[in-house]
Amino acid sequence: MRKIEHIGIAVRNIEEANKTYRALLNIEPYKAEEVESEGVLTSFFQIGDSKIELLAATNPKSPIAKFIEKRGEGIHHIAFDVEDIEAEIERLEKSDFVLISKKPKNGADNKIVAFLHPKSSHGVLVELCQEASSSQ
Amino acid sequence: MRKIEHIGIAVRNIEEANKTYRALLNIEPYKAEEVESEGVLTSFFQIGDSKIELLAATNPKSPIAKFIEKRGEGIHHIAFDVEDIEAEIERLEKSDFVLISKKPKNGADNKIVAFLHPKSSHGVLVELCQEASSSQ
Repeated sequence: MRKIEHIGIAVRNIEEANKTYRALLNIEPYKAEEVESEGVLTSFFQIGDSKIELLAATNPKSPIAKFIEKRGEGIHHIAFDVEDIEAEIERLEKSDFVLISKKPKNGADNKIVAFLHPKSSHGVLVELCQEASSSQ
Repeated sequence: MRKIEHIGIAVRNIEEANKTYRALLNIEPYKAEEVESEGVLTSFFQIGDSKIELLAATNPKSPIAKFIEKRGEGIHHIAFDVEDIEAEIERLEKSDFVLISKKPKNGADNKIVAFLHPKSSHGVLVELCQEASSSQ
């Protein structure tokens, strides 16, 4: 784990949340992207070496819609930047962490991602995140 | 806002959580500290330019005890590093953000801190965080 790559924040409305986080961070988002496989609209703000990723659901079956229905808006996950996601998954499984899916998949912002189940990390949904270009 | 200073994670037991986050991050915590005014034990891990702060309650009235009672263990807040906390508070109040307390106070890890109410930041408890030595 090299750094906090981003913090994911679940929001109801991406436009309203963009306004809020523009005002909060005093910067503009650098990217907006839809991830159809996850049913989300995303918006990214760079802050220091890390990013804030706003996530809004595009349909009621999206994990973000379910999260908000259960807990309301708020912090959804922490993503850590890793150099070699396969090696990290292997290392973490040996330490009894539970992967939500063992096979990494394509995420937003040109990343290959995998998630650890919150039950093995004290309630925190942890994303492992490798730059796609460095593995392909 | 210059960077994510730290992510605060509410945990039931600091020793167990230390073991988990040692294994997850593959590093040792660099500091443990009790903040009596908040009723918390803290443990800090450095990761890149940011930190993970584990927080466990020392008494049932601690904000961390109340958080866990209501929502379970998990991410409690995001702290952003600021150069001038008084100026940031003034700027954010003008943008209609709600401060939990208008006067900054001493926090863990040699910081002066102030919190924004989650209702003005889409469910996210935001901490502003200034290095104590740079203002005194």
